[in-house]
Amino acid sequence: MKQKAIFYHAGCPVCVDAEQKLLGVIDPNRYEVDVVHLGEQKDRIAEAEQYGVKSVPALVLDGKAYHINFGANLSDLK
Amino acid sequence: MKQKAIFYHAGCPVCVDAEQKLLGVIDPNRYEVDVVHLGEQKDRIAEAEQYGVKSVPALVLDGKAYHINFGANLSDLK
Repeated sequence: MKQKAIFYHAGCPVCVDAEQKLLGVIDPNRYEVDVVHLGEQKDRIAEAEQYGVKSVPALVLDGKAYHINFGANLSDLK
Repeated sequence: MKQKAIFYHAGCPVCVDAEQKLLGVIDPNRYEVDVVHLGEQKDRIAEAEQYGVKSVPALVLDGKAYHINFGANLSDLK
């Protein structure tokens, strides 16, 4: 069974670049990535916060947030 | 032929965690990861700087730096 990863972004240039590069290296045989645009899916901001996401782009692996460079604060997306 | 990725770290807790989690999701069939401890290999700090690495842990993909959370500034490793 594939493990789930969540990539939170907001469509910003830093986000798009991270999505293209970083998600591209993930092993598709082992991981399934849920890509969430928090600007369009504001109802999932609370979920992202629960994982400890402070800014986007961020990748959540095993429930833990990994912030990748910096695009925008989560607070600015509300 | 495998593409090369470089993971720069300094043995810090944030670095170790990122190494274990993030490097674990990389597709081993397509990527070969060079793991560099900049505290022990100070001669490679200049190389990391050229890629735009400002802090560790950082992953370099296609010559571009992706900072993952924050462990330590590169300037503090010199």
